[in-house]
Amino acid sequence: MAGTGQRVMVVKSGGPSAVPEWREHFRVLLPDTELRCWTEPGNLADIGYALVWEPDEGRLAAMPNLRLILSSAVGVEHILADRMLPRHLPILRTVPGEAADQMAEYVAWAVLHLHRGIPLLQEQQARGHWQFHDPPLASARRVGILGLGSMGARCARMLAGIGFRVSGWSRGRKAIADVACHAGQGELPRFLADLDIVVCLLPATPETRGILGTENLARLPRGACLVSAGRGQQVPERDLLAALDAGQLSRAVLDVFENEPLPAESPLWRDPRIIVTPHVASLPSREARARFIADAIRRFEQGEVLPTLYDPALGY
Amino acid sequence: MAGTGQRVMVVKSGGPSAVPEWREHFRVLLPDTELRCWTEPGNLADIGYALVWEPDEGRLAAMPNLRLILSSAVGVEHILADRMLPRHLPILRTVPGEAADQMAEYVAWAVLHLHRGIPLLQEQQARGHWQFHDPPLASARRVGILGLGSMGARCARMLAGIGFRVSGWSRGRKAIADVACHAGQGELPRFLADLDIVVCLLPATPETRGILGTENLARLPRGACLVSAGRGQQVPERDLLAALDAGQLSRAVLDVFENEPLPAESPLWRDPRIIVTPHVASLPSREARARFIADAIRRFEQGEVLPTLYDPALGY
Repeated sequence: MAGTGQRVMVVKSGGPSAVPEWREHFRVLLPDTELRCWTEPGNLADIGYALVWEPDEGRLAAMPNLRLILSSAVGVEHILADRMLPRHLPILRTVPGEAADQMAEYVAWAVLHLHRGIPLLQEQQARGHWQFHDPPLASARRVGILGLGSMGARCARMLAGIGFRVSGWSRGRKAIADVACHAGQGELPRFLADLDIVVCLLPATPETRGILGTENLARLPRGACLVSAGRGQQVPERDLLAALDAGQLSRAVLDVFENEPLPAESPLWRDPRIIVTPHVASLPSREARARFIADAIRRFEQGEVLPTLYDPALGY
Repeated sequence: MAGTGQRVMVVKSGGPSAVPEWREHFRVLLPDTELRCWTEPGNLADIGYALVWEPDEGRLAAMPNLRLILSSAVGVEHILADRMLPRHLPILRTVPGEAADQMAEYVAWAVLHLHRGIPLLQEQQARGHWQFHDPPLASARRVGILGLGSMGARCARMLAGIGFRVSGWSRGRKAIADVACHAGQGELPRFLADLDIVVCLLPATPETRGILGTENLARLPRGACLVSAGRGQQVPERDLLAALDAGQLSRAVLDVFENEPLPAESPLWRDPRIIVTPHVASLPSREARARFIADAIRRFEQGEVLPTLYDPALGY
């Protein structure tokens, strides 16, 4: 099956209706690949590759010749949730350049929106009220990014290009031109204390769970703003609402939530201090993801090291 | 009065309450300057400089030793409206670097807001409705800027840095890296025909009056978006509403209006397709403007050529 021959890939991502689109892309990108739907996988011994988002528990373990698990997006937490996951298999995180570009566009929008006080101007518009405000220049606005992977680094560079004073924080030390890079738990309090706007782009790991809860939100200067576009579990919603009520946070732009889709009864929908977007910050097209995956499979079969594999030591 | 001695400057900008702030800035920046309020100008023969926005008709003509008229902002149309204006005197347009930076931040926000479909997401939030959309990447979005002066050029560079496909149009030919520059009336139709988002930053002149009326709006691709931050007279509001009703335009972000403040009865306030901001795109601080003006006065007194003088041949 390997290298030169026929590949068999089973797909569970985007529902059964997405399979024809994946098939169309891979027909061009990896012509020797047979694509099978998750619900009709045929002989499980044929399957070498599984392209999945939320695999049903135990199904991957039942594929005896599986060689590589392909996450259909950047996250892997839905795959790790399978308690019978064959832990010895490599898992590819799908991070096309497009994903970082889209995230940077979204973050640039959200930061400019907060920086220029647009929510207040929109409230004025609703009341037919004409009033100037004097925002500082971007060069006087301190923006900090939690998470400096490919997405965070791209966002930091774009924000610095717009003119913001950008700093960043990550587990291990990074170096990005024009961006003050902090690292590790020990440097987190000082990083947070010097921000007007904090942007969370961390991966979902046990360590990042609840990282922007009451304790760390209290380290921000009073009245700071939040942009949350990593994973919802990083910002406990009860703590967020308490910080807004206390004036510790003034506004928040949220793209990710503890439960998605955000339930109809959530108070976040109707909170005037909160902008809700439906997990759209980074939505690379299936075509872009198929291109990334096809390239990774070709490299994998040639024995190359894949740079975006899940690393159990890091948790992402 | 000139050069080495005492300067007398009369001020009408921001109302009488602004005079103490102007005085404070100039006390530091030009220590030999006496500042007088427009309403108590003293001996008119003393006055060498007039810092004005809307001078009362005939008042400047009554100052026999006036040497330089200082507009308190980038526009000069309120000064030219004085039918008794001493036409032989130079008029300084006040364009600190801060003004272009602020305009570029605003335009970047407005273009990203439209590009990422945020108005639709905000309508969804109001209804508690969770739904994805697939915007193209910025690199597939064609943004065109009308007006490539210091502000337009700065905006074009910032948008290109974010990743948009940027073109521009101006009366005379300009050259800006990574921006396709069109020039003159003859190239306007083709420029407009190739845009998803058009940004108007033109100066107020007889030629630019009504430039984005029905005829030129019809040259845009159907469903294009508009950002208007030059002068309100450039976008006739009746034509704008008709283009929105017809689906020729899909959305507009407006910072300038035919009448400002926008009257309470204007239909623009409540139109869900329109975002109204109260002429805040570029509001450099009095301190930044005072710095620019102080520098210009020093250069003027040393016989240097001032680069931002009103040019009657250009109309701005």
